[in-house]
Amino acid sequence: MSETKPIIAIVGGTGDLGTGLARRWIQAGYKVIIGSRSLEKAQTAVNDINSLMEERGVVSVSVEAMANEDAAKAADIVTMTVPFGHHQSTLESIKPMLAGKILVDVTVPLVPPKVARVQMPEQGSAGQIAQEILGEDVNVVSAFQNVAAHHLQEGHELSCDVLVCGNKKDARAQVIELVEAAGMRGFHAGSINNAAAVEAMTSVLIFINKQYKCHAGISITGLDE
Amino acid sequence: MSETKPIIAIVGGTGDLGTGLARRWIQAGYKVIIGSRSLEKAQTAVNDINSLMEERGVVSVSVEAMANEDAAKAADIVTMTVPFGHHQSTLESIKPMLAGKILVDVTVPLVPPKVARVQMPEQGSAGQIAQEILGEDVNVVSAFQNVAAHHLQEGHELSCDVLVCGNKKDARAQVIELVEAAGMRGFHAGSINNAAAVEAMTSVLIFINKQYKCHAGISITGLDE
Repeated sequence: MSETKPIIAIVGGTGDLGTGLARRWIQAGYKVIIGSRSLEKAQTAVNDINSLMEERGVVSVSVEAMANEDAAKAADIVTMTVPFGHHQSTLESIKPMLAGKILVDVTVPLVPPKVARVQMPEQGSAGQIAQEILGEDVNVVSAFQNVAAHHLQEGHELSCDVLVCGNKKDARAQVIELVEAAGMRGFHAGSINNAAAVEAMTSVLIFINKQYKCHAGISITGLDE
Repeated sequence: MSETKPIIAIVGGTGDLGTGLARRWIQAGYKVIIGSRSLEKAQTAVNDINSLMEERGVVSVSVEAMANEDAAKAADIVTMTVPFGHHQSTLESIKPMLAGKILVDVTVPLVPPKVARVQMPEQGSAGQIAQEILGEDVNVVSAFQNVAAHHLQEGHELSCDVLVCGNKKDARAQVIELVEAAGMRGFHAGSINNAAAVEAMTSVLIFINKQYKCHAGISITGLDE
């Protein structure tokens, strides 16, 4: 995998965040598999992406639709963008296909209707829950929780950074490559426990979006000293 | 208080963070009271600040040393910069002096030795603990947890933003004024529950500091859209 690009699945990948990431990785030359519980929904998302890529003049496009489990099986790296309500059940359904792989967990444990209020789960974070469910044989890496889907959907440059948490440095480094391929800076941000900070920050950003009428993200400062 | 500047106490204000904030507020023309459990320690900190202000050519300097309780009593706005281990006991000792005031809680619930690992308290955050202990008659506003003391100590411009959490918008707005007086941008970041995100982020920044050899902070992006 050092020479060729890994195949990326996006489980629950038909929403704004999933298709936003898909667009960027496809444009960077990755093969992407859009997964959904409904193959039909996944196929619709893929058709939309193909149309958009044609509009954007992207010549080489590699994207496919599959059921979530098949997507997870066919991929080298599995990204998951599902609402927190489907987090546990989705993890359980794809767990058998994840042995030895990286799971990129993008889940934010929002509790509607107060999504601008931090309300973290007892276990600490969605990332920790995922690592517990999947066990040591899967490297859970949490990332992308603070990126506005709105910005990913668009083709132009992104001004926000991505904090990457996970227990293995090498797994984090592979995800940082994917962050960079999507046009952002990625940072090693510590163990999977630290996902709590990043996930909680999403509610703060939702609050700021409402307060200041924007699509806020965060950026790391003070690096050059 | 609308015309004249509020008097600011910094309880537990002899450390790097407390004196860093003091320097900036004094230079902005505020009267600052440095509080400590030991009046002697507070006096030493005040002497150091006076020397530094002379070095920097600051003409009008208003700073005084007091025991924590007296500092809290004499001030309009009370800032607290104590280690998490002294958070509860300090709050209890100054509670009688805080009725009707704003308490600016800068506390981060770090659990040594693993300070680069997010380990939040059961109650959610230090800010929520403070609001619980002090009751509805005190407006707890959490702020400044992500600012490197190293940068505050210096006189020059700061590139990091401050997320300001608290249950009352007006109280947050008063603290945002203090953030701006200290040379940074301050943002309304939601209720005191949201302090959890900002406090947890400090451990992530400590991790980044070690990993990338820097004094990192965060900045809000995506505002101008």
